[in-house]
Amino acid sequence: MTHTPKNVLIVGAGGVAQVVAHKCVQHADKFGGIHLASRTLDKCQAIIATLAQKNLPSDAITAHSVDALDVDALAELIRKIDAKIVINVGSSFINMSVMDACIATGAAYLDTAIHEDPNKVCETPPWYANHEWRKKDAFKAANTTAILGIGFDPGVVNAYARLGVDEFFDVGSVTDIDIIDINAGSHGQYFATNFNPEINFREFTGVVYSWQNSAWQTNQMFEIKRTDDLPEVGVQHSYLTGHDELHSLSKFLDVPNIRFWMGFGDHYINVFTVLKNLGLLSEKPVTLDDGREVVPLKLVKAVLPDPSSLAPNYTGKTCIGNKMRGKKDGKPSEIFVYNVVDHKAAHEEVGSQGISYTAGVPAVAAAILIADGVWDVGIMVNVEELDPKPLINLMNTMGLTTRIQDDNGDRLLEFS
Amino acid sequence: MTHTPKNVLIVGAGGVAQVVAHKCVQHADKFGGIHLASRTLDKCQAIIATLAQKNLPSDAITAHSVDALDVDALAELIRKIDAKIVINVGSSFINMSVMDACIATGAAYLDTAIHEDPNKVCETPPWYANHEWRKKDAFKAANTTAILGIGFDPGVVNAYARLGVDEFFDVGSVTDIDIIDINAGSHGQYFATNFNPEINFREFTGVVYSWQNSAWQTNQMFEIKRTDDLPEVGVQHSYLTGHDELHSLSKFLDVPNIRFWMGFGDHYINVFTVLKNLGLLSEKPVTLDDGREVVPLKLVKAVLPDPSSLAPNYTGKTCIGNKMRGKKDGKPSEIFVYNVVDHKAAHEEVGSQGISYTAGVPAVAAAILIADGVWDVGIMVNVEELDPKPLINLMNTMGLTTRIQDDNGDRLLEFS
Repeated sequence: MTHTPKNVLIVGAGGVAQVVAHKCVQHADKFGGIHLASRTLDKCQAIIATLAQKNLPSDAITAHSVDALDVDALAELIRKIDAKIVINVGSSFINMSVMDACIATGAAYLDTAIHEDPNKVCETPPWYANHEWRKKDAFKAANTTAILGIGFDPGVVNAYARLGVDEFFDVGSVTDIDIIDINAGSHGQYFATNFNPEINFREFTGVVYSWQNSAWQTNQMFEIKRTDDLPEVGVQHSYLTGHDELHSLSKFLDVPNIRFWMGFGDHYINVFTVLKNLGLLSEKPVTLDDGREVVPLKLVKAVLPDPSSLAPNYTGKTCIGNKMRGKKDGKPSEIFVYNVVDHKAAHEEVGSQGISYTAGVPAVAAAILIADGVWDVGIMVNVEELDPKPLINLMNTMGLTTRIQDDNGDRLLEFS
Repeated sequence: MTHTPKNVLIVGAGGVAQVVAHKCVQHADKFGGIHLASRTLDKCQAIIATLAQKNLPSDAITAHSVDALDVDALAELIRKIDAKIVINVGSSFINMSVMDACIATGAAYLDTAIHEDPNKVCETPPWYANHEWRKKDAFKAANTTAILGIGFDPGVVNAYARLGVDEFFDVGSVTDIDIIDINAGSHGQYFATNFNPEINFREFTGVVYSWQNSAWQTNQMFEIKRTDDLPEVGVQHSYLTGHDELHSLSKFLDVPNIRFWMGFGDHYINVFTVLKNLGLLSEKPVTLDDGREVVPLKLVKAVLPDPSSLAPNYTGKTCIGNKMRGKKDGKPSEIFVYNVVDHKAAHEEVGSQGISYTAGVPAVAAAILIADGVWDVGIMVNVEELDPKPLINLMNTMGLTTRIQDDNGDRLLEFS
């Protein structure tokens, strides 16, 4: 079976987009033309300029300027460049319009994070039902593939969850999936967020939803803490946090307890708590003495370091994975399926830090699987609805290796 | 000797102005007409409206609108109402223009805080030489009295310092004056400043100047800490802080070590440190994503509670005084001269919290001493250049009692 090479369009020009751009070019043999579009052409060209630093051909990507909220303009671009796959790694506010452009053109759609409404912080679970899943019928009618949330988390951790249920425990015995996201790296700044502060803080300012005893439970941020001794990064504290993947895993897997834990140092929590309690993370405008209205969070964003400026000095590692409990041969069993990325190695390879790296590589792996026809399912799916094994095997060759810790020790996970 | 009653003009309409207004009306027999002027007439009328709540006559004060930065307009008002005494308790930015209006009209001038240039945070010591003292010749030529910094600190603590040197130690033996300012009160908010945050934070963002070994020494804020067990407020921590009074006491008293210590709780320091390190206390504008320029400090001011809103719920006490060391009859001796104010009692009496109360009462006492001719010196002076005894005695009758702790115990300080 032969494939006509598929043209790919990357939408967005931040840290994750840079990783996606480099990885697409590294695997250019899997694609036809590679295109990069953002509202600001300069940002696309800045990413393209980094290719040469990594001995990649600068002419491998074509830059375009487009407003991704303008469905007609984006659809016109997709048709003009004949893109068959759109990798949306722009802001979380553009998912719905990029999806509409894909439905209109039949281009496969990928993203790495859930849609956010700029005017709402925390919506009713399951979150996907508020936005993305409303397009399921339209994607099906158009016989067009949409893979939601195929970064690392959400994304690879959904695949890990599916693997846990299918491969490593007795059928129907998995009781607990704890997704643990630790960034044990250091950026050397007093304080910074690893991606857009406006999105970053939204994850922690609202109610924390988790799936426990097969129902939604609510907590406050930093209310529930756990401590794990993890491979390569050692003893780490993390906190029960609301996160995208819970909202699909709770629907597609029959597992009563699915929780997400994000690692935070005491210093981060202190700064966050001060800013939150003072009202400085609010999206509601306040009035200055001169009568102007300013959204506090936008001012905080302006004083914090630009996340993209952190990469060159980032040291240390990330460790993200799933602790899963169930029964194996009738006996209680626990395993940890995980990935570790070194910030410095990521920067040396693609010019971005490890967090962008873990988000961008899976999206390109998924694009390759669509290009190869393996994941080109013609409907809208979340990652746990797909066969995880091709993704794990492919990522092992692309810089994101999956390992497993169980009673048999710690080893690379691969499938024949 | 009889005096024609002197008309008094209060400039400003904040918390201290409210105290000054109430105290002037309480002592209306010492003055002629009492006038209150601010840029915003409504603010003056709001203060006047509080008189009735304390069973004082509402018609005892006349409100005026004036821009205190407009020397001609202010001089015209002073002439129109025939004010002989101007009590400047407006923002720290207006001292120089109010002084010019007093020089032009011959009205006596009083203020409670040093002039601040909106564009400079920390200036070269002695600070008075940068601004106020440049008007010394003009006040002398006009035979007009100006008393600088006659709040509590600066103000009463300068009088305490003078008393220490003149009364309680062997001549020329005082080696150390440590001015300690403790607010052991609670406003019940997560965080708030007790007066305008724009001015409040300026005290702690620059270099800390102190007078040690007869020279200026510089430190960082929160670098040097002391702990004292103080009357009524107990064990309290305070930190070496730059403050107005050091800049005149170092010139007018021959004392080698003069330091100012301000009390801060760990929570205050934490919030301050986070805000400062993030750049949120900066007066330099930052650019938002939408291109607008915003001064971070002005946004912080907008999210913090209005200091004037704190008074009704303020509980606890302030303790401000001078620890002084020298020799008495040839032997080492230490004394503490101090005042304690209860926030709730202050609010019940004049509708303001204790910190405004300690700043406002001395200014009115000084105005009475000018009206009586006792302090109407016809030149510009700092408080320590005047006889402190009439001030101490008068304040003892006005709600601000001075006490002394020495080898003979703790007792009211009064002079016959």
